[in-house]
Amino acid sequence: MTGLVPDPRVDALRVGTPPGWVDVALADLPATMSDHAHAEKKAALSALSLLNREPARTDLVARMAKLAREELRHLDQVLGHLRARGWPLAADRPDRYAGALLRHRRAGGSGGLVDRLLCAALIEARSWERLSLLGDALADDPLGAFYTELARSEAGHYRLFVDLAEVECPGEDVAGRLTELAVEEAGIVEALPHEPRIH
Amino acid sequence: MTGLVPDPRVDALRVGTPPGWVDVALADLPATMSDHAHAEKKAALSALSLLNREPARTDLVARMAKLAREELRHLDQVLGHLRARGWPLAADRPDRYAGALLRHRRAGGSGGLVDRLLCAALIEARSWERLSLLGDALADDPLGAFYTELARSEAGHYRLFVDLAEVECPGEDVAGRLTELAVEEAGIVEALPHEPRIH
Repeated sequence: MTGLVPDPRVDALRVGTPPGWVDVALADLPATMSDHAHAEKKAALSALSLLNREPARTDLVARMAKLAREELRHLDQVLGHLRARGWPLAADRPDRYAGALLRHRRAGGSGGLVDRLLCAALIEARSWERLSLLGDALADDPLGAFYTELARSEAGHYRLFVDLAEVECPGEDVAGRLTELAVEEAGIVEALPHEPRIH
Repeated sequence: MTGLVPDPRVDALRVGTPPGWVDVALADLPATMSDHAHAEKKAALSALSLLNREPARTDLVARMAKLAREELRHLDQVLGHLRARGWPLAADRPDRYAGALLRHRRAGGSGGLVDRLLCAALIEARSWERLSLLGDALADDPLGAFYTELARSEAGHYRLFVDLAEVECPGEDVAGRLTELAVEEAGIVEALPHEPRIH
């Protein structure tokens, strides 16, 4: 795991980000931070989409509403850092990483909900790792503490999604399915080119 | 304007909500409040969509990020009121009111942006009126103060969108276009059946 200090809450990632990504990310920090802003926006949209899909699950609805608020607080913070540096927000681009992972979801029913929650969990876990790498690499910059703090939030979100899958879908083999999806996620991370993006 | 105390910030609505709507809304308050929760969600999504469409407009981006956060705070509050009463969130339904209004938008360019901002302004203005009516009708219930306070926010959002249209699109006849769209909005409000929904 790339020498990163592990977070005991994040127990799913099978591979570390390949060496070299963090250099590419830092070489174009305006692009990386723009992508990060859009990633926080997309995380909020994903939480609201889950709320919309499962309105009768009162606990899930409450947690997704609070999560979406937290993601937008982070979006606001990233936008503030961009403005402080005079860096405009770039246009959003399709997220090939998330798109490739979500293609492994089963459709509909309890299994579909489990997969949706576990894909969200894995995306949060990978965000934890990538933001931690940025935090370490930027240790001499005020941004370093910011990224290290955000990474901690992502680890908590990973845990939230895995716990929700277990509570909301008691008849499902959540741990087994998490392992299967984590194997797919590892393959995707190893295959994607390095870009100044969070994923 | 249905006897409602006007808000000097909201100067666009051409007609008041027809008498009878508030009785229908109160007769099924769980449905009305569920729809209200989804309306706050959709307002947040709309703000994020505008941010996404105009990433290079730094001031607009900052305002939309903050607006989306405020809308999600309201969503969270409405969900709390539903939970406190044991009322589940119902499934979202298409918003015929907003859909009908948005069909009058021009596509693309500066005029398209003006229309998008002014449609958002009018939806906020109508929300101000409807939430004010609920606040008045529920004056003997703790919900009354909640709705009156939210209505004040909606009036501020109306103003925000009109001001943004003027600042972001200086060559456009914003006031003239607002009048045209407000005439369309009035026709839509008068034609729609009364339902336990905010719009």
